[in-house]
Amino acid sequence: MAFRKFLPLFDRVLVERLAAETVTKGGIMLPEKSQGKVLQATVLAVGPGNRTKAGDLQPVSVKAGDRVLLPEYGGTKVTLDDKEYFLFRDGDILGKYLE
Amino acid sequence: MAFRKFLPLFDRVLVERLAAETVTKGGIMLPEKSQGKVLQATVLAVGPGNRTKAGDLQPVSVKAGDRVLLPEYGGTKVTLDDKEYFLFRDGDILGKYLE
Amino acid sequence: MAFRKFLPLFDRVLVERLAAETVTKGGIMLPEKSQGKVLQATVLAVGPGNRTKAGDLQPVSVKAGDRVLLPEYGGTKVTLDDKEYFLFRDGDILGKYLE
Amino acid sequence: MAFRKFLPLFDRVLVERLAAETVTKGGIMLPEKSQGKVLQATVLAVGPGNRTKAGDLQPVSVKAGDRVLLPEYGGTKVTLDDKEYFLFRDGDILGKYLE
Amino acid sequence: MAFRKFLPLFDRVLVERLAAETVTKGGIMLPEKSQGKVLQATVLAVGPGNRTKAGDLQPVSVKAGDRVLLPEYGGTKVTLDDKEYFLFRDGDILGKYLE
Amino acid sequence: MAFRKFLPLFDRVLVERLAAETVTKGGIMLPEKSQGKVLQATVLAVGPGNRTKAGDLQPVSVKAGDRVLLPEYGGTKVTLDDKEYFLFRDGDILGKYLE
Amino acid sequence: MAFRKFLPLFDRVLVERLAAETVTKGGIMLPEKSQGKVLQATVLAVGPGNRTKAGDLQPVSVKAGDRVLLPEYGGTKVTLDDKEYFLFRDGDILGKYLE
Repeated sequence: MAFRKFLPLFDRVLVERLAAETVTKGGIMLPEKSQGKVLQATVLAVGPGNRTKAGDLQPVSVKAGDRVLLPEYGGTKVTLDDKEYFLFRDGDILGKYLE
Repeated sequence: MAFRKFLPLFDRVLVERLAAETVTKGGIMLPEKSQGKVLQATVLAVGPGNRTKAGDLQPVSVKAGDRVLLPEYGGTKVTLDDKEYFLFRDGDILGKYLE
Repeated sequence: MAFRKFLPLFDRVLVERLAAETVTKGGIMLPEKSQGKVLQATVLAVGPGNRTKAGDLQPVSVKAGDRVLLPEYGGTKVTLDDKEYFLFRDGDILGKYLE
Repeated sequence: MAFRKFLPLFDRVLVERLAAETVTKGGIMLPEKSQGKVLQATVLAVGPGNRTKAGDLQPVSVKAGDRVLLPEYGGTKVTLDDKEYFLFRDGDILGKYLE
Repeated sequence: MAFRKFLPLFDRVLVERLAAETVTKGGIMLPEKSQGKVLQATVLAVGPGNRTKAGDLQPVSVKAGDRVLLPEYGGTKVTLDDKEYFLFRDGDILGKYLE
Repeated sequence: MAFRKFLPLFDRVLVERLAAETVTKGGIMLPEKSQGKVLQATVLAVGPGNRTKAGDLQPVSVKAGDRVLLPEYGGTKVTLDDKEYFLFRDGDILGKYLE
Repeated sequence: MAFRKFLPLFDRVLVERLAAETVTKGGIMLPEKSQGKVLQATVLAVGPGNRTKAGDLQPVSVKAGDRVLLPEYGGTKVTLDDKEYFLFRDGDILGKYLE
């Protein structure tokens, strides 16, 4: 997979958004336009982290495989092997879902 | 409950606003529009906290179960299992009610 | 009293403004509109304080019972048990009156 | 005197502006409008100072009785016992006159 | 080559963008205008890095020969021996492709 | 002289601008309007300096008697005994002329 | 030479821009207007450097005699003995040419 050959730098986190729900709970098909932006995503790769003022490396707080909740805005779209991923700063990710 | 499977990151605090008062003290029914935004809330989950410049972890100053007073503005709306919660930064919460 | 059950967070200070002067020194009744905002207040409760960059707790520089001089602007209005109080940051309080 | 019962907080300095010159050197009476803002003042009381990032207290660099030169702008007007004083931050005071 | 005689300063990284794709996967010739800005680049030279607040040198996180992903915007165009290169700050480079 | 009785505070430097050239090299009288602002000046008095984050005093980098080059803009006009001087921050002075 | 008697302060670097190319490679005379701003320059003198937060002196990263690449914008024009030089901050200089 493309991202395995891609290492985000510093405190960046490479994520893939989950597929949008195309059918409501009640079974009604959702037209694409009304499928809001998906805020749940899976972490694919993480950078080494940032350095504190004192120069120590501070690792990122999520790891590959984590399911996370993204903020509504922000992030950088990244295309790897024609597939669309996103890069977020560790500090901008709202939280993670515990198994 | 949804939030038990959700861990806020850094110094974020997951809260649920108390139900709005629908009846005045004098017993008069309040139309929904005039029910102001509820600023009291219960803490459901807290993140691990932020790191100081020196790199030490500084825990959040509220814990699950605390009843807190939210600021008028700010916070991020979060939907977990179709229920509406809010994420606030620890530093933005005004205070907590002591038992 | 309501505030006794309320603990401000970080370096916030809960104050109650003194009652506005309704009569001039010369004994003339002041219409409410011309009673300026009262800048003297009593400290009711204080937060634990902020942490320095190094992570040490730096206590607030006023304590409950102090009479202080508030800045003209700023502060957050807080209603506790239907009474109006204000929250100021320790650093925004101009000074305190010595007994 | 009012200020003796008032302690500025942090790095604030309570000053009283010198009386404006009402007569030019040549003896001509100055109409009030053309008496510019007086920038010389006497220090009446000083706060304890600010804390450095490391948390140490850094005292204010002027003391009661010093005659100082104020900047053209800034400062907070403070009324104590119906008399007008000003609060300046230590760092905003331009300099002091040596005896 | 020109860049061998050029040393970027501080945390700057000298890169050369890969040649733009002139033919689509399906073999269709792309007019120059529709060839988007190429975001993949090769690192040619790196500066010594920045100093942390404490004064220690913090080396750059990429090295000559690395293939990197540039942000959409930013960077400084630099002409060396009539050839076009770009200078980016280490912190602005999104990630690097692993061999 | 007035300035001897005046001590700038913190990292401020009291300077006196050199007299403007009224005659060109070729001996032509310059109308006052076209005499640009004089950027050369003599240092008359310096403040004790600023404190680093750690609280140590960092002396000013020029001393009384130095001839310095002022920036085009900035500085605070100060009148001492009816004479016009200027206060600049140590960090804003561009350089000094070596004997 | 004028600059030998001039010492830039802090992290400032005094440079002289190389003469603009008046003839193209093909030998065509360039009208002055189309001679772009010259971005190559020679370092004439450097300041002692800045202090880190901790108060240690951090020397400038270029020295007299270095040939450097200037950014398109910024810098302060300085006239010494009627000759035009420029002052740049060490951190704004893009890179240096190695012999």
